Amino acid sequence: MLKINKKRLWQTLCRHGEIGATEGGGLNRLCLSEADVAARDLFRAWCDEAGCQMSIDQVGNMFALWPGQDPSLDAIAIGSHLDTQAPGGLYDGVLGVLSGLELVRTLRDANVKPNRSICIVNWTNEEGARFQPALLASGVWAGVIALNTALHTRDNNGVSFKEALETSGYAGEVPAGDHSFHRFLELHIEQGPVLDANNKQIGVVQGVQAMRWFEVVITGQESHAGNTPMNSRRDPVAFFAKWVQEVFAIAEAGFSGLATIGRINPAEPNSINVIPKSVSFSLDLRHQYDDQLALMIDEIKRSSQQLELNTACSISMSEIWDSPATVFDERCIEAVRQATRMYGYSSQDIVSGAGHDSVYVSRRVPTSMIFVPCKDGLSHNEAESITPEQAEAGANVLLQSVLIMANAE
Amino acid sequence: MLKINKKRLWQTLCRHGEIGATEGGGLNRLCLSEADVAARDLFRAWCDEAGCQMSIDQVGNMFALWPGQDPSLDAIAIGSHLDTQAPGGLYDGVLGVLSGLELVRTLRDANVKPNRSICIVNWTNEEGARFQPALLASGVWAGVIALNTALHTRDNNGVSFKEALETSGYAGEVPAGDHSFHRFLELHIEQGPVLDANNKQIGVVQGVQAMRWFEVVITGQESHAGNTPMNSRRDPVAFFAKWVQEVFAIAEAGFSGLATIGRINPAEPNSINVIPKSVSFSLDLRHQYDDQLALMIDEIKRSSQQLELNTACSISMSEIWDSPATVFDERCIEAVRQATRMYGYSSQDIVSGAGHDSVYVSRRVPTSMIFVPCKDGLSHNEAESITPEQAEAGANVLLQSVLIMANAE
Repeated sequence: MLKINKKRLWQTLCRHGEIGATEGGGLNRLCLSEADVAARDLFRAWCDEAGCQMSIDQVGNMFALWPGQDPSLDAIAIGSHLDTQAPGGLYDGVLGVLSGLELVRTLRDANVKPNRSICIVNWTNEEGARFQPALLASGVWAGVIALNTALHTRDNNGVSFKEALETSGYAGEVPAGDHSFHRFLELHIEQGPVLDANNKQIGVVQGVQAMRWFEVVITGQESHAGNTPMNSRRDPVAFFAKWVQEVFAIAEAGFSGLATIGRINPAEPNSINVIPKSVSFSLDLRHQYDDQLALMIDEIKRSSQQLELNTACSISMSEIWDSPATVFDERCIEAVRQATRMYGYSSQDIVSGAGHDSVYVSRRVPTSMIFVPCKDGLSHNEAESITPEQAEAGANVLLQSVLIMANAE
Repeated sequence: MLKINKKRLWQTLCRHGEIGATEGGGLNRLCLSEADVAARDLFRAWCDEAGCQMSIDQVGNMFALWPGQDPSLDAIAIGSHLDTQAPGGLYDGVLGVLSGLELVRTLRDANVKPNRSICIVNWTNEEGARFQPALLASGVWAGVIALNTALHTRDNNGVSFKEALETSGYAGEVPAGDHSFHRFLELHIEQGPVLDANNKQIGVVQGVQAMRWFEVVITGQESHAGNTPMNSRRDPVAFFAKWVQEVFAIAEAGFSGLATIGRINPAEPNSINVIPKSVSFSLDLRHQYDDQLALMIDEIKRSSQQLELNTACSISMSEIWDSPATVFDERCIEAVRQATRMYGYSSQDIVSGAGHDSVYVSRRVPTSMIFVPCKDGLSHNEAESITPEQAEAGANVLLQSVLIMANAE
């Protein structure tokens, strides 16, 4: 059975990882920075060498087409992104793009030409570390983000995405969205601890969690820390403590969802000897399914009201972001499952908690993802780490999934 | 039985409260500001009028001596402070000073001359709102704060206390600490809700709580809000929630003490979709007795260690301030108790949670305090409010307590 070349894939990852390498062992390749451009140039040269035809659209997305037996059919697209956080790790995004290259090299060496063409994609500005929002150019490609909005977004130095594209030489001719595909498949590291903890080689990704963000304010009454007995306080910190426990329990035990308080603001008035008037913080809630997330939020609101009745504080939750769940295409998922079985890899179904280009791509094209474990789930971190064997397994599953889809219909 | 003049006391409070009056109905008389100087000038004129001899020490403390039958004996000192928060209320400190004036006026009108002299004191910079630390000039008087340290402390505009004293005309000739007294008694609003809630006219103050301040840091592990299952998180916010509940329960139910988290710092790294690496905040712990406070802290530390064992977070508590309990003089307390009974006022024993000049004065002279209720316990606030009857009751108790002490020995 056809397999990718593990050694070549690893060498390709290592060689490519020299560009923008940090002292801490990670990468610093902010979107369209000098390092990102150098990384793109090397990828382009390798694609040329492998016999691909490169085309670039208006938002810098790179499409390396490796023609199939019937070039009139829409291609199977595979890929991810080459930009990184500042600093980020060596594999986030990069693994998905370079595994696509390895896959084409493997087919070429084996003289296997599938029915459909294969297109390796590098989506621009996935991370959102330079230009906000994240998933910018896949969003434009999918029609979720307007071209003009994207081109006029600016980085922290006031440079627009348009200017950065022009300077980089990656402002392409092809109208954004012109490329069309039959299927899209993205191989990515999990960026979480589940596969690593469960000792599984492959995560068969079912979709991406629904996510809703809130700004929460708990209001009590400011009073003197020395003169106010505990039982006559309206202490928002005491309310916060009870509320957090209930919310986390509702998310975990009640719904198998996720609840995170990531941002905590200074208390008001934030004085050591004053019981605060108010505390405020962010709440990030996630669930695999939209309807379950809605029920989870209802339950949190009910519980908040109950606490309001039992204490003398009040709470307000203002929604600031709502990102519905993405459910991947069953045919793509099935191809991944079948490919995994072919190699005998251990696997489990998994739902992504993080956003990926696949979220937007899936709005236009049947899509799914393949996850491989990363050490301790660590990502967006220079210490991000995978083994050559883990990369190999992911790339092999990508290869067979693509073959299944490229020859099926 | 001798009583102060309720109407005159109230008018005096109202007239004096015109100086530095704020639109919100409070006062803004930062220590040695123009308004504070005008307030001092008016007080001085009234003391002259009442037959007192004014002397001022190097740190601006004002001593208005009303001679008793035996001027060779140490005086009974009474008083508080005329400076305010910015803004503060009309009665915090002011009530204690002007009730002293009313007391002298009452004795003069009634031709009652006690054995010992009476000295009305206005302590400089009680609030600490302009110069830190608070209780500055009573601290110098008592020998707790070094004169030079006090003179060289600077306000937010870089003006030293020495410069401010010189500019104000209240840098006196008398060496700080030269005045000596037989007893000190301070009438003050409670600045807490207890007397108001219990409908008591007089609080017989037993002392001032012991207080210890900590900086607390809870450390977990930073990870992705979307990719980290609830049960594999090391979330310092979850730890914080449990810990706060335990600490508040230990303080309240376990020890009848007080625990306050007044300052909360932004989480690290404080990003909505990242489980924080750490959270940090202040902890203010108080108890009437030093030994009970020590036991309470032991219990909190034991409970913290237990939580550390049960979760995967760690906690550190660094002590940043330690203020031992003040226990007031039993003879002074008894005089207040007796005076309260004479008028048939309702009363209760109470421990002050806030610091007062009496804390430092008590280090040199037998001291106690009299509390009167203030509406809803509100203080350090323009809405601070008491009734003429509440002021009257406090001043009457002050009067009889002083008479008891001035004639007793």
